[in-house]
Amino acid sequence: MQLPSSLLENAVAQFAKLPGVGKKTALRLVLHLLKQDVDDVQHFGETIARMRRDIKFCQRCCNVSDGDICSICANSQRNPRLICVVENIRDVIAVETTQQYNGTYHVLGGVISPLDGIGPDQLNIESLVQRIAREETEELLFALSPNIQGDTTIYYIQKKIAHLPCRITTIARGIAFGGELEYADEMTLARSIANRLPVQQYVK
Amino acid sequence: MQLPSSLLENAVAQFAKLPGVGKKTALRLVLHLLKQDVDDVQHFGETIARMRRDIKFCQRCCNVSDGDICSICANSQRNPRLICVVENIRDVIAVETTQQYNGTYHVLGGVISPLDGIGPDQLNIESLVQRIAREETEELLFALSPNIQGDTTIYYIQKKIAHLPCRITTIARGIAFGGELEYADEMTLARSIANRLPVQQYVK
Ligand SMILES: [Zn+2]
Ligand SMILES: [Zn+2]
Repeated sequence: MQLPSSLLENAVAQFAKLPGVGKKTALRLVLHLLKQDVDDVQHFGETIARMRRDIKFCQRCCNVSDGDICSICANSQRNPRLICVVENIRDVIAVETTQQYNGTYHVLGGVISPLDGIGPDQLNIESLVQRIAREETEELLFALSPNIQGDTTIYYIQKKIAHLPCRITTIARGIAFGGELEYADEMTLARSIANRLPVQQYVK
Repeated sequence: MQLPSSLLENAVAQFAKLPGVGKKTALRLVLHLLKQDVDDVQHFGETIARMRRDIKFCQRCCNVSDGDICSICANSQRNPRLICVVENIRDVIAVETTQQYNGTYHVLGGVISPLDGIGPDQLNIESLVQRIAREETEELLFALSPNIQGDTTIYYIQKKIAHLPCRITTIARGIAFGGELEYADEMTLARSIANRLPVQQYVK
């Protein structure tokens, strides 16, 4: 595809770097922006850049945040003794959308996956262990995708906090084993939180 | 969908304004950018904004351009007496991609469509008529989508330049009537340019 302007070419190349966006789609998006007001497109570009530059990660739960502490951790209505452990921010959003959960979170930033070279040290596990001891957490609810990597991660963390008086549960297996948490429908996810199980029944 | 950061929320809202991008896809794109370097995302935003701010439209053919005259018009290897009339920039790119065309273009910016309230005055038709007279154009090749609006536009322009000694052709009907030009495959489009017809055989 030969484009008649390098400005256009560069903009298309930027969009085409996004996941799931091919060069044809990128061109369609750029030509759409070309029809918008200059100020609106300026605002588009600035909003994206500012998001990346100014976003912070909550010092307590590693969730994205506008400040040092995220809005969920700062909310005194939420139970600080209940921590839901998730893989990533998308999972926080998925659980929040169910409106069934009233505790806090801990975002691991991934799951243990030796084949992908991801070990415990690359994840926010140490901060979780320290947090459970410091905050006298009563319940740790794992909401990880039900697959080998998720199970391995639960098993690892469980052993790390075995000395602490913290109940460990997981969301119920409403989601098929091998399924991705973030693609579960709201109802399934809401029900599997309501039916959460002690982890002993789950990982042996 | 409740997002834990207004910076994230604003960025998602911006992406979700793009055509064909829902809120879930927008979130996926934003979370992807969140994992990129700050400088890369800054560059993304600036490239998009600069494209819209600095892009020009060729004073001769109305194609997008980095300068006053586009790279196609400025190319002395191209036949200046042959003008291909297209609806939009996407069609210029589609025709260029065939590598079968060696003339110049004129981008109408749409087609006549009374139902959508688009008349000849909102299109770059007057500039085309003046250009044909001034440049002593030998052939005007219509490459419009084969539908009622395209045919109406050809008919209108044909009458406007009836007094000028300019041959009028259209790309061959390789594309099914009612099809969209920009979605035609390269081969079909290339062949229909090679087999172009005098417009008298086409619109009566
Ligand atoms: Zn937090
Ligand atoms: Zn031009």
